[in-house]
Amino acid sequence: MEEREFVLPDAVVLNEEDTITILDQTLLPAQEVYLTIDNEADLIEAIQKLRLRGAPAIGVAAAFGVYVCFARMASSVSSVSALKELYDGISERIRASRPTAVNLSWALERMASVFYPVISSFSIITPSDFSHIKSLLRQEAIRIKEEDIAMCRQIGENGVRLIKPNSRILTHCNAGHLAVSRYGTALAPIYRAQELGLNPKVYADETRPLLQGARLTAYELMKFGVDTTLVCDNMAASLMSQGMIDMVMVGCDRVAANGDVANKIGTCGLAVLAHYFHVPFYVLGPSSTFDAHTPTGRDIIIEQRPASEVTDLHYAHRMAPEGVKVYNPAFDVTPAELVTAYITEKGVHQNPIVGF
Amino acid sequence: MEEREFVLPDAVVLNEEDTITILDQTLLPAQEVYLTIDNEADLIEAIQKLRLRGAPAIGVAAAFGVYVCFARMASSVSSVSALKELYDGISERIRASRPTAVNLSWALERMASVFYPVISSFSIITPSDFSHIKSLLRQEAIRIKEEDIAMCRQIGENGVRLIKPNSRILTHCNAGHLAVSRYGTALAPIYRAQELGLNPKVYADETRPLLQGARLTAYELMKFGVDTTLVCDNMAASLMSQGMIDMVMVGCDRVAANGDVANKIGTCGLAVLAHYFHVPFYVLGPSSTFDAHTPTGRDIIIEQRPASEVTDLHYAHRMAPEGVKVYNPAFDVTPAELVTAYITEKGVHQNPIVGF
Repeated sequence: MEEREFVLPDAVVLNEEDTITILDQTLLPAQEVYLTIDNEADLIEAIQKLRLRGAPAIGVAAAFGVYVCFARMASSVSSVSALKELYDGISERIRASRPTAVNLSWALERMASVFYPVISSFSIITPSDFSHIKSLLRQEAIRIKEEDIAMCRQIGENGVRLIKPNSRILTHCNAGHLAVSRYGTALAPIYRAQELGLNPKVYADETRPLLQGARLTAYELMKFGVDTTLVCDNMAASLMSQGMIDMVMVGCDRVAANGDVANKIGTCGLAVLAHYFHVPFYVLGPSSTFDAHTPTGRDIIIEQRPASEVTDLHYAHRMAPEGVKVYNPAFDVTPAELVTAYITEKGVHQNPIVGF
Repeated sequence: MEEREFVLPDAVVLNEEDTITILDQTLLPAQEVYLTIDNEADLIEAIQKLRLRGAPAIGVAAAFGVYVCFARMASSVSSVSALKELYDGISERIRASRPTAVNLSWALERMASVFYPVISSFSIITPSDFSHIKSLLRQEAIRIKEEDIAMCRQIGENGVRLIKPNSRILTHCNAGHLAVSRYGTALAPIYRAQELGLNPKVYADETRPLLQGARLTAYELMKFGVDTTLVCDNMAASLMSQGMIDMVMVGCDRVAANGDVANKIGTCGLAVLAHYFHVPFYVLGPSSTFDAHTPTGRDIIIEQRPASEVTDLHYAHRMAPEGVKVYNPAFDVTPAELVTAYITEKGVHQNPIVGF
């Protein structure tokens, strides 16, 4: 097999001048617009409006964000307690921007584990101390991203072993390089398969309401020559019932201690279908997505998003009656019994309670 | 319980002057535009573009259509063979407009069963004979519609016995009064429940790609005060997993002899979910939808519809990459083992192979 060169742009970049560049994913695929962010309000807006999305990418952006906002706001502060208060405020406001994404908290804790020991070693902060603290935070943020890239690459290596030549893979939402630093999670094995000449055939759920599958997954896979077919979310059963899907690969926003998976709304339904039609269902993500502090899926708080996403976003005219009620959870919870295996950077973890 | 008066407009009306009036369902809910149709090309366009949809409504429109087109085109023809050829041509072209809808063929056969005996009793056709034939065809077409209304009313009576006060019912696509002559099929028990003061709570799947649930079901239910919540198709598992759905009620385009159900794409997936989460799954339709000549679901030809429905219809701008492949079947097939009961005008037919 010939291995092709394969270079992907990054979803989140930390610039030399302490700004963050992101590709505005709400405008894809029609427009490729890059945004430069240098303050907390813009970062939180970008996360909440899903200009930047995907749990690992949000984690990286949070690390970059806490660094950039702190570096820019703290230069005139010299008291240790004022600096701690400033840092805490930035970190907590960023943390609150997407409650479900565990990577966000995880990345902020990584940053805090650098900040608090060093700040606690000072009684007052000189400009040189401040430069030192900034430099440590910057290093840690960059390290989080580099580790993320290495992890995604390893998830790809682990997952590609499940893919045969011409395998037909169904995926949901976008867990590709736009969602993560590079390679993605659910799409990492697909990119590796494509690099290795295995010619994977991907069915991409459009993923209502925000159409990340149609707009982002189809966009990034096609950009790299992957054979991609777009389907509406409600067509998965039709494909599986006809034996047209060899496996499902999805990402995860949070995996509870018992194996329950919180991921984009629609994931649980796919898992039930895969179970019924005997299609392997794989959940892919960095091991940081596994949250030992959350016992089961019932303990995961599911964000409810605005009705307008369902009734009229992306539409020329409103397509539902005025005043209609809407149920619009961002995520659902897939019971562990429906997961064939979890694929992380550490390996393929077969679920002992599922047999195919 | 107080029974409220309940009057619904008709989806298809045959006018005195041998024209057909339909409500253009592609423009709902934003605009209520009525179209007057007096020729075959416009009728076929209306059926194919789904201005008029729903298996029973298409059957009624086909009966009206074959009558109107024949009445208007045949007035200058006097040879029996030429009249037969004309009638055959009209009937076959209308029949070919939606291959999955068995009611369409069924209605055309009803009309043919009137036309052929009477035409065969003549050797040449006088103007008075022609008036007689027209009158018989008109009567038969009107009878088909009246029977349809009576059937829907009876489906409602049979189905409402399954509904308790405040029952939470999930429905898919639109099988309401817009799809049928009056009351609808899947929605008929809901309308009856509403009339009887049972306060049903309906979750309406938006039903991609053409959004019949968002545009039509939410529209017609809300218009009559039914408590309606709109969800994306991929949210059904989330609702069911939280015990928020008491039953699923869907229509059917065709039921095979073994009980397999062809219905709007997404139905099969809902049935699998209902099975997994132990929610009763009811299929509602007139007994004419049961097709003894189709042994199983595998024998039902599934129409594939244009990619543009998925990639950009109803959108301000195209939302999928140019050139992406699309899989867009209009229907799917639900295995009989997933159906709790079939509800027709004749009663509630429990599926002996399913137990809840």
